Amino acid sequence: MHQMDGTADSPALQQLYRDFEAAHMAPLWTQRDDLMPMAPAPQAVPFVWRWKTLLDIAQRSGDLVPVGRGGERRAVGLANPGLPGTAYATPTLWCAIQYLGGHETAPEHRHSQNAFRFVVEGEGVWTVVNGDPVRMSRGDLLLTPGWNFHGHHNDTAAPMAWIDGLDIPFSSANDVGFFEFGSERVTDEASPEFSRSERLWAHPGLRPVSALEDTVSSPLAAYRWEHTNRALDEQLRLEDEGHPATVEQGHAAIRYTNPTTGGDVMPTIRCEFHRLRAGVSTAERHEVGSAVWQVFEGQGSVVLGGVEHRLETGDLFVVPSWVPWSLQADTRFDLFRFTDGPIMDRLGFSRTFIPSKDGV
Amino acid sequence: MHQMDGTADSPALQQLYRDFEAAHMAPLWTQRDDLMPMAPAPQAVPFVWRWKTLLDIAQRSGDLVPVGRGGERRAVGLANPGLPGTAYATPTLWCAIQYLGGHETAPEHRHSQNAFRFVVEGEGVWTVVNGDPVRMSRGDLLLTPGWNFHGHHNDTAAPMAWIDGLDIPFSSANDVGFFEFGSERVTDEASPEFSRSERLWAHPGLRPVSALEDTVSSPLAAYRWEHTNRALDEQLRLEDEGHPATVEQGHAAIRYTNPTTGGDVMPTIRCEFHRLRAGVSTAERHEVGSAVWQVFEGQGSVVLGGVEHRLETGDLFVVPSWVPWSLQADTRFDLFRFTDGPIMDRLGFSRTFIPSKDGV
Amino acid sequence: MHQMDGTADSPALQQLYRDFEAAHMAPLWTQRDDLMPMAPAPQAVPFVWRWKTLLDIAQRSGDLVPVGRGGERRAVGLANPGLPGTAYATPTLWCAIQYLGGHETAPEHRHSQNAFRFVVEGEGVWTVVNGDPVRMSRGDLLLTPGWNFHGHHNDTAAPMAWIDGLDIPFSSANDVGFFEFGSERVTDEASPEFSRSERLWAHPGLRPVSALEDTVSSPLAAYRWEHTNRALDEQLRLEDEGHPATVEQGHAAIRYTNPTTGGDVMPTIRCEFHRLRAGVSTAERHEVGSAVWQVFEGQGSVVLGGVEHRLETGDLFVVPSWVPWSLQADTRFDLFRFTDGPIMDRLGFSRTFIPSKDGV
Amino acid sequence: MHQMDGTADSPALQQLYRDFEAAHMAPLWTQRDDLMPMAPAPQAVPFVWRWKTLLDIAQRSGDLVPVGRGGERRAVGLANPGLPGTAYATPTLWCAIQYLGGHETAPEHRHSQNAFRFVVEGEGVWTVVNGDPVRMSRGDLLLTPGWNFHGHHNDTAAPMAWIDGLDIPFSSANDVGFFEFGSERVTDEASPEFSRSERLWAHPGLRPVSALEDTVSSPLAAYRWEHTNRALDEQLRLEDEGHPATVEQGHAAIRYTNPTTGGDVMPTIRCEFHRLRAGVSTAERHEVGSAVWQVFEGQGSVVLGGVEHRLETGDLFVVPSWVPWSLQADTRFDLFRFTDGPIMDRLGFSRTFIPSKDGV
Repeated sequence: MHQMDGTADSPALQQLYRDFEAAHMAPLWTQRDDLMPMAPAPQAVPFVWRWKTLLDIAQRSGDLVPVGRGGERRAVGLANPGLPGTAYATPTLWCAIQYLGGHETAPEHRHSQNAFRFVVEGEGVWTVVNGDPVRMSRGDLLLTPGWNFHGHHNDTAAPMAWIDGLDIPFSSANDVGFFEFGSERVTDEASPEFSRSERLWAHPGLRPVSALEDTVSSPLAAYRWEHTNRALDEQLRLEDEGHPATVEQGHAAIRYTNPTTGGDVMPTIRCEFHRLRAGVSTAERHEVGSAVWQVFEGQGSVVLGGVEHRLETGDLFVVPSWVPWSLQADTRFDLFRFTDGPIMDRLGFSRTFIPSKDGV
Repeated sequence: MHQMDGTADSPALQQLYRDFEAAHMAPLWTQRDDLMPMAPAPQAVPFVWRWKTLLDIAQRSGDLVPVGRGGERRAVGLANPGLPGTAYATPTLWCAIQYLGGHETAPEHRHSQNAFRFVVEGEGVWTVVNGDPVRMSRGDLLLTPGWNFHGHHNDTAAPMAWIDGLDIPFSSANDVGFFEFGSERVTDEASPEFSRSERLWAHPGLRPVSALEDTVSSPLAAYRWEHTNRALDEQLRLEDEGHPATVEQGHAAIRYTNPTTGGDVMPTIRCEFHRLRAGVSTAERHEVGSAVWQVFEGQGSVVLGGVEHRLETGDLFVVPSWVPWSLQADTRFDLFRFTDGPIMDRLGFSRTFIPSKDGV
Repeated sequence: MHQMDGTADSPALQQLYRDFEAAHMAPLWTQRDDLMPMAPAPQAVPFVWRWKTLLDIAQRSGDLVPVGRGGERRAVGLANPGLPGTAYATPTLWCAIQYLGGHETAPEHRHSQNAFRFVVEGEGVWTVVNGDPVRMSRGDLLLTPGWNFHGHHNDTAAPMAWIDGLDIPFSSANDVGFFEFGSERVTDEASPEFSRSERLWAHPGLRPVSALEDTVSSPLAAYRWEHTNRALDEQLRLEDEGHPATVEQGHAAIRYTNPTTGGDVMPTIRCEFHRLRAGVSTAERHEVGSAVWQVFEGQGSVVLGGVEHRLETGDLFVVPSWVPWSLQADTRFDLFRFTDGPIMDRLGFSRTFIPSKDGV
Repeated sequence: MHQMDGTADSPALQQLYRDFEAAHMAPLWTQRDDLMPMAPAPQAVPFVWRWKTLLDIAQRSGDLVPVGRGGERRAVGLANPGLPGTAYATPTLWCAIQYLGGHETAPEHRHSQNAFRFVVEGEGVWTVVNGDPVRMSRGDLLLTPGWNFHGHHNDTAAPMAWIDGLDIPFSSANDVGFFEFGSERVTDEASPEFSRSERLWAHPGLRPVSALEDTVSSPLAAYRWEHTNRALDEQLRLEDEGHPATVEQGHAAIRYTNPTTGGDVMPTIRCEFHRLRAGVSTAERHEVGSAVWQVFEGQGSVVLGGVEHRLETGDLFVVPSWVPWSLQADTRFDLFRFTDGPIMDRLGFSRTFIPSKDGV
């Protein structure tokens, strides 16, 4: 028990604390520094998961665990060691590896939780979002905003694995979630190259006159690697030519956006892709809010709270709130990240501190 | 362990689950229905705290616990029985009774957490917000938005108690909080009738030309009972005269707003005041997000998830997400409430269901 | 004809210009400097109208001209001498003196044009806006946003005059106006002290929960002198006490706002009230957009484009776009102004230049 | 003079009207129906200009009129026959054909007026916007938002003509314009296939992390025909497949947008492209605000206020406010249009009436 005055608790004070409990009350003064730290003091810890391990475990799950109704998905979540008893990557974000065997189908359902998939390797699966089949290929970001029905089906004989990102921890902590079962099979088993949402929306700066109302989440279900790769390439070339385009020297980055607003793709999740030239180190950054990164290609390392971790393709790591991070690229280094940035922005909590720029 | 197929786990599956743990991973399929319930299934429970109990405990704390630096405040929080080990009223909201003895001072500090005070009885304390002394009187709502320095001082010999509302649980869970100590004494010990913020901003529909930039939180530090009372009165009179003004028959309500935007007073907390005519029952409502209510005056009851609780002046109760609630007024019945509505609205999670209107 | 090369037009060029006309075309190069001046070069001129003259003319109109259906209003507009053939105060704004004899009624109608009234003296008339009778008293601003039905009736035997402000020139130039006749008599002949809109909305920072949707124009029909006066008073007192509150030393000002958004009262018209201490001179300002001012009380002068004009109660003057203006107060000096600022802001054209601050 | 009561004006009334004039005043009652018509009654008339005529006149201007400093541009504006003495297409919009001879340069300047170019045929010119050379090719929309420096240079020996769209009439009427001369030659004479702005911004749904602040106008300087054409194609194919995508049966349309907001490309000008299948007739529409259309390809006709006009490639026509219009396609029919829609939307004046849908 916290002692305000350095002396042992008097019997009267001991009685008071017992009465607090009986009355379902708790004093602020014994827990003020825990509840209201001088700077964010997350329980979640920085951590790295190796793609090799994840993929191996996912494959074994594929042999042992069915994918049907009830469990709904063969997805295995990253469980932050600082958040025991949960499968949360951070207090707000869920990240899982999902695995679908040859010709398997994950049945349709919908939920309030916002979701996306990012494909680090493989192909052959279509995710069907509100009846619109969306091809999943390497480097693609695929969205399933809250309350959209979705299922997945593997159109090939080969299994496929990818990562899922959701706001499950946030939704669960704040009691906002609804869930509904849908069709056992996906409602459209076609395997078109492009979804209808892309055919309507994936034209730069163009908007259908038939859809002029803004939507909370992006109406575009797929962000293709071809476009992401080209955008990053051009940023680095523009930098070479002497024009402002990159975040910092040698560090290109794009944010995936909702074309109806120019803002984040979903109200709780920010998605970005970062590319470093070989040899580049980024400035150390402290940011309010948490992030999950996945290496897409190349080799390098991340320094998380002063500790360096070597990284290879597919490796995932977590940056809890305010833990300083910086990246070093040995080769050209491509990384996908997602964060709870929209939550922080919309609720007025965002802060960034870059010691090399803002001073210490 | 959840069985997808009804049979006992095979040794291979048992090994897989052990390997999940070793790899800091956890399967979705064993916890899907917990993480993603069909409708919000809060751990927080509906609960009522009696003002008499709270006040008694606060007074005893006044005798036993100092208010100075470190503990910072003599505040005792409502600890929801469904959230053991915390002092959280709901997963997002903190509510405490704060007690300041005659001529005591609670030192200045500031924090990212948004805060307000609501005064159910008493007077004599000034809260000093960024150097602006704000009188605290019965029925007043006083704001301390995030990162504003604030302290309290009691200008009289008599003690005073009030309730504090903050977003501590939300801020703590999401690691957004910063904290800074300020002056040991309040920086302005004057006790003016009106704060400078009111003198600048509390003129209906008028805005200083010297302050045309919108602010994230309300620049108005005090919402006076006199105005709240008159606004509610007028709504009921307009209803009597046959004009639309009330939420439903016999149920008047105002929302406290940020005059620079017309929106909620702070980005995470919504504040409202409700008045029922004697004899009125409100429709049963399910709402996403959680709320804390305090009876300001009158007698009546609340039905929470089907259970009726009698209420008197000062009593506090909690409505967790999606728990149906309705109020019954024996006398004219005045209640203050605060909720996490702005979080739900800004992140796209708001839903309301009124069986009598929307059908069952 | 503009000569690009200093020589006489060749016959071929002469023929070309004739062919332009025949083809309903016109070259840019002969009119570029007129159409696209180096800085705004308004045709409207700075001008002062004397209240005495206006009132005299309005009274004589009262004797000679009926107020009924067809003409609709006994209003006489300020006709800027730089805009001959119109009754426009500026290219965007209409300003008229309106006169209603004892017990007269101006019939109800509605139009797309946004309108307000400001009362420099007198009382006894109620304007009925969408069936809600609104008292008109000295110092009050009364709104009639676009497409609200409205009529006026004089409840007394004495005549009353006030000024009307509308966006008629803008609406006419841009072909946006619709008009509809309403009741011959006002639909509610009551003369309450406060309109229903005030009873719902004129509570500082409070909003009815029954009206949470934002509206394009303010739902508050009346802004009372009592509140305006007090707000200005407080700004000067706060300045005296050493706190920021005024626009510049000795110059208090409020903007009338829409409480649902914190923005301007109507989408095309900005309304403000300014108060100068005796002896104060304001900095010279150039602003994009035009304004009409009316002296409410006190004596002083305005310098418009370098020319000083003495002013007394009720006098009106126009400031065309970018014409520098400054005010000098002999006594305490109170002025109402309205501008097309919301048009300029919303379309990205706003600019202000203050030589003493921004340098020359 | 308007007679309110059907009798001849009395001498007293005649004197009053003379006194109005002397006092620079004008009564509302004599002009109410002109100033405030029952529905928009534009002076601008529907009108068609033939591309053949425009091009011929532009070519002759090319032989006779220099393009250099002073006149600045060899542009010939459409002069609406209903707006004599101006070169205005509508009360808000300017539309001109601009002509640049082989290897000619139009010098750099900037102005508050928003501008774009649309290319119905030809190629070889680069417009240099804030130092960024932007290729102009058939079917492309090129932006020059207000206050961006811009010049044009012809990189080939062949002349080129295109249309310019600006808000000159609106800017001139409302006195918002500033103008500044720039370099005599364009500041970058390169002729790259893609501008830097495209390389940064023309990636569907992707935004540079180095440019997260929203901008009033689009940062994307070029919208390429390849994307427009594909977007329209896909809408018609989706319609064929039974999915919602088009404005109405057989009528595809895209709006050009600012990728930072999803809104219009510039605050005063809306740009769209429409495609009709052969044989399709659009519903008749009345819209508040004015528009200029150019046929890009195909044959058909427009009915403007009940009068049919045959149209061929390059022909331009004007639709004044509230004049009903419908299109008929003989072949596949492609049309570009620009309107003052953002003005109408932002100021609350937008209305559309479709008799076949809304009833008559």
